[in-house]
Amino acid sequence: MDAELNVSAGPGLPEPLAAELAARFAGRFATGETARLQHGSSEAHHLPRLPDAVVFAESTEEVVAVVRLCARHRTPVIAFGAGTALEGHFTPVAGGVCLDLSRMDRVLAVNAEDFDCTVQAGVRRQQLNEHLRDKGLFFPIDPGADATLGGMAATRASGTNAVRYGTMREAVLSLRVVTADGRDIRTSRRARKSAAGYDLTRLFVGSEGTLGIITEVTLRLHPIPETISSAVCGFSTLKGAVDTVVETIQSGVPVARVEFLDDVQVRAVNRWSDLSLVETTTLFFEFHGSERHVEEQVGTVAAIAEANGGGAFEWATRAEDRTRLWKARHEAYYAAVGLRPGAVGWPTDVCVPISRLAECIEATKADLATASIPAPIVGHVGDGNFHVLFVLDPDNPAEAAEAERLNRRLVDRALAMDGTCTGEHGIGLGKIDCLEAELGEAVELMRTLKRALDPDNILNPGKIIRL
Amino acid sequence: MDAELNVSAGPGLPEPLAAELAARFAGRFATGETARLQHGSSEAHHLPRLPDAVVFAESTEEVVAVVRLCARHRTPVIAFGAGTALEGHFTPVAGGVCLDLSRMDRVLAVNAEDFDCTVQAGVRRQQLNEHLRDKGLFFPIDPGADATLGGMAATRASGTNAVRYGTMREAVLSLRVVTADGRDIRTSRRARKSAAGYDLTRLFVGSEGTLGIITEVTLRLHPIPETISSAVCGFSTLKGAVDTVVETIQSGVPVARVEFLDDVQVRAVNRWSDLSLVETTTLFFEFHGSERHVEEQVGTVAAIAEANGGGAFEWATRAEDRTRLWKARHEAYYAAVGLRPGAVGWPTDVCVPISRLAECIEATKADLATASIPAPIVGHVGDGNFHVLFVLDPDNPAEAAEAERLNRRLVDRALAMDGTCTGEHGIGLGKIDCLEAELGEAVELMRTLKRALDPDNILNPGKIIRL
Repeated sequence: MDAELNVSAGPGLPEPLAAELAARFAGRFATGETARLQHGSSEAHHLPRLPDAVVFAESTEEVVAVVRLCARHRTPVIAFGAGTALEGHFTPVAGGVCLDLSRMDRVLAVNAEDFDCTVQAGVRRQQLNEHLRDKGLFFPIDPGADATLGGMAATRASGTNAVRYGTMREAVLSLRVVTADGRDIRTSRRARKSAAGYDLTRLFVGSEGTLGIITEVTLRLHPIPETISSAVCGFSTLKGAVDTVVETIQSGVPVARVEFLDDVQVRAVNRWSDLSLVETTTLFFEFHGSERHVEEQVGTVAAIAEANGGGAFEWATRAEDRTRLWKARHEAYYAAVGLRPGAVGWPTDVCVPISRLAECIEATKADLATASIPAPIVGHVGDGNFHVLFVLDPDNPAEAAEAERLNRRLVDRALAMDGTCTGEHGIGLGKIDCLEAELGEAVELMRTLKRALDPDNILNPGKIIRL
Repeated sequence: MDAELNVSAGPGLPEPLAAELAARFAGRFATGETARLQHGSSEAHHLPRLPDAVVFAESTEEVVAVVRLCARHRTPVIAFGAGTALEGHFTPVAGGVCLDLSRMDRVLAVNAEDFDCTVQAGVRRQQLNEHLRDKGLFFPIDPGADATLGGMAATRASGTNAVRYGTMREAVLSLRVVTADGRDIRTSRRARKSAAGYDLTRLFVGSEGTLGIITEVTLRLHPIPETISSAVCGFSTLKGAVDTVVETIQSGVPVARVEFLDDVQVRAVNRWSDLSLVETTTLFFEFHGSERHVEEQVGTVAAIAEANGGGAFEWATRAEDRTRLWKARHEAYYAAVGLRPGAVGWPTDVCVPISRLAECIEATKADLATASIPAPIVGHVGDGNFHVLFVLDPDNPAEAAEAERLNRRLVDRALAMDGTCTGEHGIGLGKIDCLEAELGEAVELMRTLKRALDPDNILNPGKIIRL
């Protein structure tokens, strides 16, 4: 990156701002095309758009400095973590400065007795879990990518463990945030609960960098369970698999993970991860607890599965088998994209009340059966949340149009069932209209919040809402 | 109340507003002293201050009408549920209209398969649980009083089950809210998780009626556990009791309730509820789960208690014994006030990280030992949350001054341990300065939110923050 050091930023950056940033961040201010490309494009379907410059911050104080400089010049600032968001969250639609936080990667404190830790925003989830392992603790939230904790907080991420451990909404105890006018605040103390004033923590969780820039995150942790058991079970019908999930949740079994893969996705996973699962609707389970308690949970769920046409549970008892299974699940996106050479993926997600899940997945599956593009379904179904992965030929605009149409039908179906247009991917650029359809006049309240906290619209402009 | 029907409202109400409200709410607009007294005073220590009038709303549309009329006349509107808040939340410091929501007491929907329900704001927690019992469901959050669900959402209430089931922060799925300009919005759909835009739900949870008026609440429910076991255990030392709690939490046992009562409180409870507990530091436990899982939890916790100088567990196995035990716990406040004839209670609460709990309670106990007033300690200690109940002679201002001094020392002690000035009672009028001490510049952000959502400061003015 040093090779790219020059002050000829993209066309949108005021020259005095470029000069000030270059002086303040010598060696960490990049305006070359490579760095800008790396920070403007994403894995998902949204078109790349380049920031005018990239700054690599190494401390909250530096974030304050960047935000203050940009505020003075009314120039957009887009926080950037691992660049794995799926709805164009970090696409700099109005140019400006991409503020890369990935070098803020220190675990600042682990309070093992309190089951919490504080990390800088650029720490990644796998790095955190490696750091915690020796202490007998883990952090459960696991979106597909190895995202940063700051990005996960900013997008209200969840993943496979959310059915038991919640999402970033529940996991974040406190945040350190830089506001649009460059103030450096903490949203809360470290106590597990508080009734002290407005919930500023939850205001920033899920705000996608539009209300403030998260620089530190205090998280709830959990003890590594005494026993962990994972199993795979194939079903003769889609309905049987979904009913198994619904009945498991309704029985009160505290299942740690229950993941749904349709036949198309199982075929993709077999090829990508060299597994040999029967290519039918399949559930991946995981149970956490004491040995006796896990045994009891398994007994209950196995009986439910059997009654719903499930095959035998195939157990992954050794740690390496479990790792292989869940790695395959986490790579479902890549597996799906691998179904077509040269294809690109467009992942979407919705979430519905669990009583409507079977109906929603069945109607979606029927809809996709008429599509010309492969579109496997995979989901964190214990929450009522599932994904469709459209696998597109990037050179055929008709396919993108078809995916758009199918996606909107999926969202409308979920909304008609009192569900949400996104369970975990967020709004970004891709679902602004869906959010309007979902919440109507409440979106006007979001505009009021945005205008109040960022009156000059410099923080990740153009995301979540149209002003 | 009809007897009090006249349009001579208190001095602060503009005459045209009084006339409009009287016309619109014939029979449900009260300006007599009795109704105003009932809606201006509280059980706690804050001085009564009367609203100018009381309106009894029966629908969200009526709440919209009241808010719009008051907005037009820039007159304060104070939402009122059961009137059980403890920090002066509903004291109308600037007069105005008290909007009593207690007649909005219908359970609108129970979605048993989804473990959720929607209630009007005036439904009380005991009423909801009676409604749910036949369906095998319950709502766990239980502040001491039989509060309304709207009030509990507005104050981010918790209670004895929070250690396992969370607080109103986790329990509320969605809200219907009337904003300061009289819009009627829903904050979210009914899906269990969502990444769709700013978390408006959590913005209103805990906002104490200052950002909007909650008229309907959608809540997460839980299955009534197969087995419920309650026990009481006395300890030879305070430290032994607190260490038992800390080690229980750290062992990962999903204890449903673990309540601490100091020796003074046990004495008060014995007298008030006709129990015969040994008058020493005592823990009340409750365990939920399958029979086997409860047995396992009990085994783990009993061993921890024994190692920390606990006596034998006294079991309340029959439902009526359990009810008696928890009724006694819920009446701890009245029991404490009953220690002195003619006394009034001033309850306060703080919450600290659990690793600091023993130190915090011991230092508090030592501080209270020098006090001239009785001040038992009782707490939801699994969360690090505990209360001090100052029992005051209302005719002796020196006692109130002493309580104020002790309270501030308690708050400062909690803050020094990275705790919060209130785990569940809220800020109201009583802890505005404490909130400033706790969050510093972040309070300025709360002011920005308040000004944006309620520019004329008509919604419960004077609470949480000073403008």
